[in-house]
Amino acid sequence: MYINKGFEKKTDKQTNKKQNILQKSKDRRNRMTMNNIWKPEENIPANILAVLSKPHPNYQLAFLNIVQLLKTQRRTGWVDHDIDPCESISDHMYRMGLTSMLITNKDIDRNKCIRIALVHDFAESLVGDITPNDPMTKEEKHRREFETVKYLCETVIKPCSETASEEILDDWLAYEKQTCLEGRYVKDIDKYEMLVQCFEYEQKYNGKKDLEQFWSAISDIKTEEVKGWTQRLLEDRKAFFDSLKK
Amino acid sequence: MYINKGFEKKTDKQTNKKQNILQKSKDRRNRMTMNNIWKPEENIPANILAVLSKPHPNYQLAFLNIVQLLKTQRRTGWVDHDIDPCESISDHMYRMGLTSMLITNKDIDRNKCIRIALVHDFAESLVGDITPNDPMTKEEKHRREFETVKYLCETVIKPCSETASEEILDDWLAYEKQTCLEGRYVKDIDKYEMLVQCFEYEQKYNGKKDLEQFWSAISDIKTEEVKGWTQRLLEDRKAFFDSLKK
Repeated sequence: MYINKGFEKKTDKQTNKKQNILQKSKDRRNRMTMNNIWKPEENIPANILAVLSKPHPNYQLAFLNIVQLLKTQRRTGWVDHDIDPCESISDHMYRMGLTSMLITNKDIDRNKCIRIALVHDFAESLVGDITPNDPMTKEEKHRREFETVKYLCETVIKPCSETASEEILDDWLAYEKQTCLEGRYVKDIDKYEMLVQCFEYEQKYNGKKDLEQFWSAISDIKTEEVKGWTQRLLEDRKAFFDSLKK
Repeated sequence: MYINKGFEKKTDKQTNKKQNILQKSKDRRNRMTMNNIWKPEENIPANILAVLSKPHPNYQLAFLNIVQLLKTQRRTGWVDHDIDPCESISDHMYRMGLTSMLITNKDIDRNKCIRIALVHDFAESLVGDITPNDPMTKEEKHRREFETVKYLCETVIKPCSETASEEILDDWLAYEKQTCLEGRYVKDIDKYEMLVQCFEYEQKYNGKKDLEQFWSAISDIKTEEVKGWTQRLLEDRKAFFDSLKK
């Protein structure tokens, strides 16, 4: 009886946790569909606003506090699939940075790829990680992200370093607007890193989590080099699922 | 009565969780003091060993699987202080990479700093995050880390890209052996990032977590630029603790 009560308690707790997560997800989506125009300056957490509102702001600290938001936010795609624990937004960009070091194409500036990889989701610090499942147009998502990057570069980064402000905006645009081959490579690595993470989660849950939807991203991969890596990944994934059938 | 039982259950569960964490920490420390010589090739997780043992290994996948270990391991200093959730090893390196972009000293190659920041704790993927509180000499810690980086560069990275293998070893040594000014800068940024994280946790726990020991790292910061950032951070920290006294 006691054990049963214990189990009930545990189940209640799990249900509450799940309800909390779902409620937060609902609140987040409701905020997305509100009619007022979203502005980055109205979405800065109070503690960072306090740093920026002082007579002589500590801009380096404000910048690190902004980046901290990428360390504490989990990637929405995994959260929506009840993967817990799951990676942070910065975990993802970190591995993209390291993956960029592997590029062998001699026409590519690897340093630029690393920088693009590290900043391409920078706007998610304030905007959040919006997925195609969210009730927001692609245009509105891009508008918010662009406004955020411009705002952070001008208000927080420029007072630390004018060069950094220009470089970060330039690297972010290289990905967003695909202004150079390095931006194209990083876009492919963004997908490749996500697919490797997906495969790692599929293995962790012994193939019992249905994460099939993520694999449609393969068709977005365009460069020959990353296409080659992905082909090998697909073969290993097939071998894993075949081994489960035995 | 039911509520009481509920609370007991919760407390039991929390105690179990804490005991598990402490046991894991004890096991980890026991492994450190064992007499046999620690080798990186004997400390690769089974799933990665399986990838590397195939007739034609998928080296890119093995590399990303190794980096994944930096995404899933939490930083020991915070875990030992019951900070939960806390940042991963890669979260820390990610923010160091972004912080490196802010350097204004014109003698510094920022791209090199970014790369050093991203790889300086790479060996922790297999060695773990060993702190001064652990029962291991500094020499043994450095030996394990150097063996690991050499092993990973030779066995996993070189088959992907000979250049990457050389660069990653070179960048890791720049930090470890302080072979250039960029290595010195990143060493300072390593401390600065940790102190900002420490201050963020102090604020999160309303000053009730005793994290004072981490602040002794200030004396290791040598470059004028990062010293300046740290001075401002100390002022803001003092203001925070003063405000709690009011």
